Amino acid sequence: MTKPKNDTLLKALLRQPTEYTPVWLMRQAGRYLPEYNRTRARAGDFLSLCKNPDFATEVSMQPLARYPLDAVILFSDILTIPDAMGLGLYFIEGEGPKFERPLREEGEIRSLTIPDPAVHLSYVMNAVSQIRKTLNNQVPLIGFSGSPFTLACYMVEGCGGTDFRQIKTMLYQRPDLLHHILNINTQSVIAYLNAQIESGAQAVMIFDTWGGMLSHSAYQQFSLHYMSQIFAELKSEHDGERIPSIIFTKGGGLWLENIADSGCDAIGLDWTINISEARRRIGHKVALQGNLDPAVLFAAPKIITTEVEKVLVDYGNGDGHVFNLGHGISQFTPPDSALTLVEAVHSLSRKYH
Amino acid sequence: MTKPKNDTLLKALLRQPTEYTPVWLMRQAGRYLPEYNRTRARAGDFLSLCKNPDFATEVSMQPLARYPLDAVILFSDILTIPDAMGLGLYFIEGEGPKFERPLREEGEIRSLTIPDPAVHLSYVMNAVSQIRKTLNNQVPLIGFSGSPFTLACYMVEGCGGTDFRQIKTMLYQRPDLLHHILNINTQSVIAYLNAQIESGAQAVMIFDTWGGMLSHSAYQQFSLHYMSQIFAELKSEHDGERIPSIIFTKGGGLWLENIADSGCDAIGLDWTINISEARRRIGHKVALQGNLDPAVLFAAPKIITTEVEKVLVDYGNGDGHVFNLGHGISQFTPPDSALTLVEAVHSLSRKYH
Repeated sequence: MTKPKNDTLLKALLRQPTEYTPVWLMRQAGRYLPEYNRTRARAGDFLSLCKNPDFATEVSMQPLARYPLDAVILFSDILTIPDAMGLGLYFIEGEGPKFERPLREEGEIRSLTIPDPAVHLSYVMNAVSQIRKTLNNQVPLIGFSGSPFTLACYMVEGCGGTDFRQIKTMLYQRPDLLHHILNINTQSVIAYLNAQIESGAQAVMIFDTWGGMLSHSAYQQFSLHYMSQIFAELKSEHDGERIPSIIFTKGGGLWLENIADSGCDAIGLDWTINISEARRRIGHKVALQGNLDPAVLFAAPKIITTEVEKVLVDYGNGDGHVFNLGHGISQFTPPDSALTLVEAVHSLSRKYH
Repeated sequence: MTKPKNDTLLKALLRQPTEYTPVWLMRQAGRYLPEYNRTRARAGDFLSLCKNPDFATEVSMQPLARYPLDAVILFSDILTIPDAMGLGLYFIEGEGPKFERPLREEGEIRSLTIPDPAVHLSYVMNAVSQIRKTLNNQVPLIGFSGSPFTLACYMVEGCGGTDFRQIKTMLYQRPDLLHHILNINTQSVIAYLNAQIESGAQAVMIFDTWGGMLSHSAYQQFSLHYMSQIFAELKSEHDGERIPSIIFTKGGGLWLENIADSGCDAIGLDWTINISEARRRIGHKVALQGNLDPAVLFAAPKIITTEVEKVLVDYGNGDGHVFNLGHGISQFTPPDSALTLVEAVHSLSRKYH
C-alpha cells in the first residue's frame, strides 16, 4: 500500500472528487526560505546541493514543515540530463546555469548519447528514494524533468535568458540537427522520468520553460511533439497506482487544445490566461494546475486572500483543479505570504467541491 | 494633397483593397544596418541620435534607400515621454535604457506632470516634420509611442528586462498609485501622438512591450483600458486624411477579442499566434499586422521565402493584412535577409488580392 495519507493532489490530477482544492508551489523549496539558504550554505554551492541526496532530501522537505502543502516536489536542477551528457554544467552566482561545452558543431551533436539514469543520474534516484522514505506517505512526491526543447535551448545557447538566436537559427536553417538533439533528449527524459517513478515519484511534471518562445507551428513540431512522445512512453502505473503527468509550457495559453491532446493528465497554466477560459476550452479532457501571478505574494495578506479567491471563483465548481502559482515562487517572497496562500486555498475551496 | 504616392499601407490598415500586401519592419532603422551604425557613431551616442532631427531623419530614411518598403517609421526612443517628465533617461552601452530617478515615493508620483510636446518634445516634432519633407510623399510615415503601462514599467523599475517586481508590487498593493501614473501617462501619450499627427505622422502605433507580462485581468485594467482611452482621444483625421492606429501588445494573443474592441484600426501580432486563427477570431473588425518570427531572418534566402509564404497563406485571400515581423528586427540580421523578405512579400502576395 503506497497511497499517501493525503492523496488529494493525485485525485485532483486525475479529476476525481476531493474535499478541497490541493495546493503546492512551483519552486517551493527555494531561496525565499531562510532554512533553504542555510542548507545551501552548508552544501557549498547549488550543484553540490543537488547532487547530495541528503541535502536534496532536506530542502525538498523544508516547505512541508512550514506549510500544510498537498505535495512535495523533488529538489533538483532542470539541467541534470545535459550535465550527465557531459556538457559541463556550472553556475556563476547571480547568472544562472551555463555549459562549458555548448553544442555548436554537427560532430558534437551527432555523438550525443542518452545517459543511463542508474549510472549517470543515480544521485537523483537516490534523492527520490530518500525523500519518499522521509515523507513516510504523508503527501505524494512529484518528480520532474525539463522538456526536450527547453533542455535543447540551454544545450545549444550554452546558457539561459538569451535571445535564442543560436537555437532558432538551427531550427530554421538546420531543423534536422535540432530534431536529432530533440530525439536524444526525448529518449533521455523518458528513461529519466521512468527511473524517478521506479524510485518512488508518484506524479511527474515536464517543465517546458522556453516552448512559449516558439512560433505556433514550431511549438507543435519542436516542443509539443516530443512531449507527446514522452507521455506515450511513460509508466502510467507503478506499484498498483496511477502516476499522473503534468505538462507546463510557460506562455502556452494559445495552444491549450493541442497541449490537452498530448497525453498528459493535467496542464499547468501561467497567470496570463483566465482559468475559467482554459477550463471552457479544455477542462473536460484534463485537470488544470495554476495559476496565480507569483507577484501577488508581494502584497498584504488580505490582498493575497482576495486574489486566491478570484482564481477559485474563476475555476468554479467541481474537481480537477490543483492550485499553484503561474510560475516559480520568487526568491523575494516573504515566507509568511506563502502560508497565507496555502491556508486561503484550503479554507476557501471547500465550497466548490 | 498629402496622400503618399504609395498608400498601400494606409489602405491595408483601413481594410481597403490593395494590389499586394504592404510590408514594413519593426525597428527597421537599427543596428543591423551598417549605415545606421555610421550615423550613430557620428552622433556620439543613442540619445544624441534621437534628439537631433537631422540624424533622426537620416536614420529613419535609411531602410527606404535599401528596401522597397511601404512605410517609414519615425526613429525615436520609446522613453521620450518619461525623459521629458524629468526622470533622467540614460543609456549604458549593452544594458538598455535606465532612469536616474525611478518612481518609488508617493510624493514623486503625485507630482508627475504631463509634458507639453511643443516645449519638451519639440525635437521629436521637428524630426517628424523633417522626415515628412524628406520623404516627399513616397510612402507614409508612422509615428509611435510606448503604451502607458510599458512607460510605467520603465518609470517604476528604473530599467527594462527586470522581473517586474516593483511595478507588480505597486499594482497589487497600491493600485491607486499605479492608476495615477497611468492616467498621467495616458494624457501624455494622447498629447504626444496628436502632436506627431499634426507634425505629419500619417499613421500611429502604440508599442505595449510589457503588457503581456500581466495577468489576464490586470492587462484589461492596467494596460488595455488606458490604450482604449488614447484611441478615443486621438485625431482620427488630419488634413482631410484618416490617420489609422495600430496597437501591439507583445504576448497579447490570448486577449485579441478585447484588443480588437479598443478602438484601434489594426492589431500587431507577435509570432506565437497563427495569423489565420487571429483573423478567424477578430479579422472582421480590424486589420492585422505581422507576424513572422524575426529569427527566420537568420536562415538562408530560400527558407525566408518559404516562411514568408506560410504567413501569406495563413492570412489567406483578401485585404487588411500588413506584413511585418512579430517583434523588432534583430541587430544580428544580415541586411540582405530583410531584402529577401520584402521582395518575397511583394511578389508572393499579389495572388491573394
